[in-house]
Amino acid sequence: MTAGKRIGILTSGGDCAGLNAVIRAVVHRAVLTYGWQVLGIKEGTQGLLQRPVQYQVLDLPQVDGNMMRMGGTILGTTNRGDPFAYPMADGTQKDRSDEIIGGYRELGLDALIGIGGDGSFAILKKLADKGGFQMVGIPKTIDNDLGLTEVSVGYDTAVGVAVEALDRLQPTAASHARVMVLEVMGRDAGHIALAAGIAGGADVVLIPEIAYSIEKIAQKIKQVRSTGRNFALVVVSEAVKTVDGTGVQKLFQGGQKRYGGIGDYIGEKIAEATGAETRVTVLGHVQRGSMPSPRDRLVASAFGVHAVDLIAEGKFDRMVAWSNRGVIDVPIAEAIAEYACVELDGAMVKTARGLGISLGD
Amino acid sequence: MTAGKRIGILTSGGDCAGLNAVIRAVVHRAVLTYGWQVLGIKEGTQGLLQRPVQYQVLDLPQVDGNMMRMGGTILGTTNRGDPFAYPMADGTQKDRSDEIIGGYRELGLDALIGIGGDGSFAILKKLADKGGFQMVGIPKTIDNDLGLTEVSVGYDTAVGVAVEALDRLQPTAASHARVMVLEVMGRDAGHIALAAGIAGGADVVLIPEIAYSIEKIAQKIKQVRSTGRNFALVVVSEAVKTVDGTGVQKLFQGGQKRYGGIGDYIGEKIAEATGAETRVTVLGHVQRGSMPSPRDRLVASAFGVHAVDLIAEGKFDRMVAWSNRGVIDVPIAEAIAEYACVELDGAMVKTARGLGISLGD
Amino acid sequence: MTAGKRIGILTSGGDCAGLNAVIRAVVHRAVLTYGWQVLGIKEGTQGLLQRPVQYQVLDLPQVDGNMMRMGGTILGTTNRGDPFAYPMADGTQKDRSDEIIGGYRELGLDALIGIGGDGSFAILKKLADKGGFQMVGIPKTIDNDLGLTEVSVGYDTAVGVAVEALDRLQPTAASHARVMVLEVMGRDAGHIALAAGIAGGADVVLIPEIAYSIEKIAQKIKQVRSTGRNFALVVVSEAVKTVDGTGVQKLFQGGQKRYGGIGDYIGEKIAEATGAETRVTVLGHVQRGSMPSPRDRLVASAFGVHAVDLIAEGKFDRMVAWSNRGVIDVPIAEAIAEYACVELDGAMVKTARGLGISLGD
Amino acid sequence: MTAGKRIGILTSGGDCAGLNAVIRAVVHRAVLTYGWQVLGIKEGTQGLLQRPVQYQVLDLPQVDGNMMRMGGTILGTTNRGDPFAYPMADGTQKDRSDEIIGGYRELGLDALIGIGGDGSFAILKKLADKGGFQMVGIPKTIDNDLGLTEVSVGYDTAVGVAVEALDRLQPTAASHARVMVLEVMGRDAGHIALAAGIAGGADVVLIPEIAYSIEKIAQKIKQVRSTGRNFALVVVSEAVKTVDGTGVQKLFQGGQKRYGGIGDYIGEKIAEATGAETRVTVLGHVQRGSMPSPRDRLVASAFGVHAVDLIAEGKFDRMVAWSNRGVIDVPIAEAIAEYACVELDGAMVKTARGLGISLGD
Repeated sequence: MTAGKRIGILTSGGDCAGLNAVIRAVVHRAVLTYGWQVLGIKEGTQGLLQRPVQYQVLDLPQVDGNMMRMGGTILGTTNRGDPFAYPMADGTQKDRSDEIIGGYRELGLDALIGIGGDGSFAILKKLADKGGFQMVGIPKTIDNDLGLTEVSVGYDTAVGVAVEALDRLQPTAASHARVMVLEVMGRDAGHIALAAGIAGGADVVLIPEIAYSIEKIAQKIKQVRSTGRNFALVVVSEAVKTVDGTGVQKLFQGGQKRYGGIGDYIGEKIAEATGAETRVTVLGHVQRGSMPSPRDRLVASAFGVHAVDLIAEGKFDRMVAWSNRGVIDVPIAEAIAEYACVELDGAMVKTARGLGISLGD
Repeated sequence: MTAGKRIGILTSGGDCAGLNAVIRAVVHRAVLTYGWQVLGIKEGTQGLLQRPVQYQVLDLPQVDGNMMRMGGTILGTTNRGDPFAYPMADGTQKDRSDEIIGGYRELGLDALIGIGGDGSFAILKKLADKGGFQMVGIPKTIDNDLGLTEVSVGYDTAVGVAVEALDRLQPTAASHARVMVLEVMGRDAGHIALAAGIAGGADVVLIPEIAYSIEKIAQKIKQVRSTGRNFALVVVSEAVKTVDGTGVQKLFQGGQKRYGGIGDYIGEKIAEATGAETRVTVLGHVQRGSMPSPRDRLVASAFGVHAVDLIAEGKFDRMVAWSNRGVIDVPIAEAIAEYACVELDGAMVKTARGLGISLGD
Repeated sequence: MTAGKRIGILTSGGDCAGLNAVIRAVVHRAVLTYGWQVLGIKEGTQGLLQRPVQYQVLDLPQVDGNMMRMGGTILGTTNRGDPFAYPMADGTQKDRSDEIIGGYRELGLDALIGIGGDGSFAILKKLADKGGFQMVGIPKTIDNDLGLTEVSVGYDTAVGVAVEALDRLQPTAASHARVMVLEVMGRDAGHIALAAGIAGGADVVLIPEIAYSIEKIAQKIKQVRSTGRNFALVVVSEAVKTVDGTGVQKLFQGGQKRYGGIGDYIGEKIAEATGAETRVTVLGHVQRGSMPSPRDRLVASAFGVHAVDLIAEGKFDRMVAWSNRGVIDVPIAEAIAEYACVELDGAMVKTARGLGISLGD
Repeated sequence: MTAGKRIGILTSGGDCAGLNAVIRAVVHRAVLTYGWQVLGIKEGTQGLLQRPVQYQVLDLPQVDGNMMRMGGTILGTTNRGDPFAYPMADGTQKDRSDEIIGGYRELGLDALIGIGGDGSFAILKKLADKGGFQMVGIPKTIDNDLGLTEVSVGYDTAVGVAVEALDRLQPTAASHARVMVLEVMGRDAGHIALAAGIAGGADVVLIPEIAYSIEKIAQKIKQVRSTGRNFALVVVSEAVKTVDGTGVQKLFQGGQKRYGGIGDYIGEKIAEATGAETRVTVLGHVQRGSMPSPRDRLVASAFGVHAVDLIAEGKFDRMVAWSNRGVIDVPIAEAIAEYACVELDGAMVKTARGLGISLGD
């Protein structure tokens, strides 16, 4: 029998659009189908560390109405570090994992749903293993770099914000005959940059998986001009590297930071190589906090429902995942182990090259 | 060798968002990679029927800049009927397929890319078979009812428009304690309604695949009220049927049309059954004409590139398709033969039920 | 001295975007500047009629965060009728004004801020006169038909939703060579239709202030075609009338409703007169419930602050108003008395005619 | 008689949303009402400088359809400098005004409509005076700093983009308990920052007209925290100055640029003063290039029509302007002379202070 369970849910790591939609789906499924109680733990594992434990009971009225439409997470996500090496006020680190496990016990939880990325999952798994508690993971990351799932919550919205920026940069680029550089997030994976670049009509897309050279970029911009077009759009992922392997260190010279960021650097180099007037936009945190896209809400809802079902079935240490129009689940350890970069022979790279987009190589 | 080919492209059937992005991708790939010439045929097969043949040469400047961001199709899609039974001015029908085949020959085309749905593909395939010409299909339909592809061009945007409508109806529903009914498109498939209902926070979603009863709907609305919420959102797909099998005929009584549409009918019946104040919104053609969503542009771009590659490889009578994060191709005859309704045991139905959404049954 | 006051606020009449932004501004001003207490009365005057009186204390945490961005009103607006002739369950009407005045006294209010349109203001003024209580009005109506203020809260958002619909109808109109008819709200004033028609690129705009004839509309559509354009956009305000003075009664024939609404009627008549394929979209309640536009939030904020200041200064029976980039206040009786239609010699009509838009005359 | 005139139109200075809507309105009015010919001059005055003169004939088909919805300007605006002191390739400056006047004559223009800001108007006025040609100005600037008009084309859209960014930053700020700093454009006028800050729910808005001190900002952030809210939104106009009068020079230290921009500087100082985690977003060029808002399209349309009417009436050296819901015209010399900063005793400042927003003073 599954009746009478009490489950916890927490959001961990960088926030993104769709977290509230996950929380709502979990509460709907747990309360309406199984009659369970859901406790929302505040600020990731931090809520379990504090005494009294920081949480709120989540019932239908708390998650109804407009909540699923809102970005961010009502539970907060300001955890301050790895509980196994928690940064203390005096500068030392301390293993505080037992306190978190104690928090879990104090709440009398039967299981915990963690919404996070690979880093959060690794810690939660370690806690669950040590504390003997039961967990299920729901993947969220704007970077979409989690293995074994086609998409993670937050990615579609982040791509949408980046495409919208390109839509806005295009007319001003054309009016002023400029090369517009847009720097986007994505950590070590170029998914946001590549998808946004294709959908937003970019001419050049630089991703961490492919080392770029300024000459190749300049070549493409000259080719664009030769067709009679006077402007170009360039998307730069935040962690790109040059062909000689240098990355962000290029931004510093003689110990001094010379560039605001990689976008600035690329913009200046393009200007030097082509004579073009360039302007740089760094998209920043607007990629995280937006109202979730319909697809993010759909995926979030499907994930939330399935995660609760896993608990009902007694299946733990699993991560829910999107695959081929549906929801599956995979061992969370495998998902953590596999970092999902852009596949160099995948459909996105092929499409980009097919459109004539330069990937800088 | 593939050099020097001349290919045609046409859009057929109801328009949707993303068609221009497909056209652009085809031109980019054909011109930049293969050095081919692309002719855009006007108004579907109608352009091949007219003399002189109606077309325009599509080179990079024609498809550059803002075109991929625009809804609709620059080629038009006002074809007037089945060329094998073409409706003539005098009311008779005539087989005009030879004229279309003649148009294809007159242009000296090596292959034709048809962007359409199942109806358009069936006709194009028949023309290709009869005329001995070579074609590749790219699936587009807001209804997403084409078999063998996860998504068709236009679907994601249509869902987005419907979700946005629900986002707007929610606050006015709550302010006035109303039940808001939203009627969406989708023909005999409930994909738009179901996806929009999940992502838009609906309480009830009626789809053609599941016969509804007003009592079940009323039950759900009463349950919502019992949780303290004073409003509800209901999504109705345009071709839903009742449990006793009656569909749109319900709208007529004694030969008179009594309701503007199915949404009106459902709205009135809910009001009768629950005493709730109801309001009905029929979404209509705004679902077609919007600026394409990022995902529709991405899929459109991938499809366009792959379709050109199929021609380069000499693979014909194929439809490009989306599968598991990538592009594949399938026999077009099989795609036509398989109408893709909502799967009753699929992830979307399971998610909807998991959230407590009533599907009217 | 103003310290220690307790004021009430209620929303009345049809909801619109920006009401929550008004409420927030009132609370911010009253609490932060004056240290007053603000009570939010539920469901318009209905909250004062019920016993116990239905209200909630509104302090900073209640109105902070995301509330100003949300459509609708957190206070609800489901009042059930004129308290001076309140519809009772047994079908009779009863003067229940004393009960409302009693509710006001019971709460110990020093003043009441009513957010409403002309109808709501008339009732609130009558209540205030009878009950000796003090009120200030904040104008809201998507129709923008309130006198003595350039804009009312909700109008800008409603225009934006209508323009967006035209933006979406344009490409599908062009792809299919259709005449698209969009029916918008506005009651007896054509402001939404006219502004949306100008900003949305309409060819024909029908407003209640100008009687239309189908011939003139047909003429315009033919002129558009003569320039080589194959589609047209027509905006119809919900209460338009023909040159022979008939209005919505046209929709009925022999006692039977023949058309879903005025948009359907106009669409059919255009089809008959021009041979064009027409499609009709009725925008409906999505015009009310949207996230408020930046301008609506700005105006709402300015109104809310000024209304509180009026109370602090002891100025009552006033309506705040927008004039020439700033906020003023006017006698509420004068504002009620003046219904603001579209001025036939005003800038909007001149602009529309200047663009070649047919107003149907 | 006005028949048979030929008028030129050009866009000058920084681009913004709504320029294409102005161009369309001018063409519609000139062609449809007066039967004139309109020549679109390329790249501001640059098109008149080049030989052959760079222009395109603008008739209805060129400006129809989707153009009014598009950001930027189809005419381009890449003029390279003051024609009275034109920067030559050899580094010298040359008076090339006669060449521009020659271009005007060569085209046989009867009048010129210049769409620009104060800088562009000053040059055009000087050219008109010297060359004896006739001009009318249409104000555009996202900064809204032009005197004698309530709004300029492009301002409303720029505010909208900034508000949308705040809408997106709010949930991520709340989820992570951060202070989010948003740097916006506006040159020496704080209009964008102030309007966006009010409409977007900012806690602190820094504008060039009011010198700020970090202590005052920190005070506000601490007050926000004392109400239980864990995040804050700060809007910074690009040219703000401290109370001791230092502005952008703060960004440099020992000749080295220490900060990416003023936003970075403010963010770091807030972090130091409050201990808050801060993140900075620089909005950049997305403020310029967007699809114009409905209001910008409305104002643009009204301006375009009125400018043509001025020419028809033989009224020159005028700038069209928005005043009190309508269009007027003013002497262009007066408009140039009056720089419109934020009025310190105006409604916007009063509203901001009324909401409890800190202006840094």
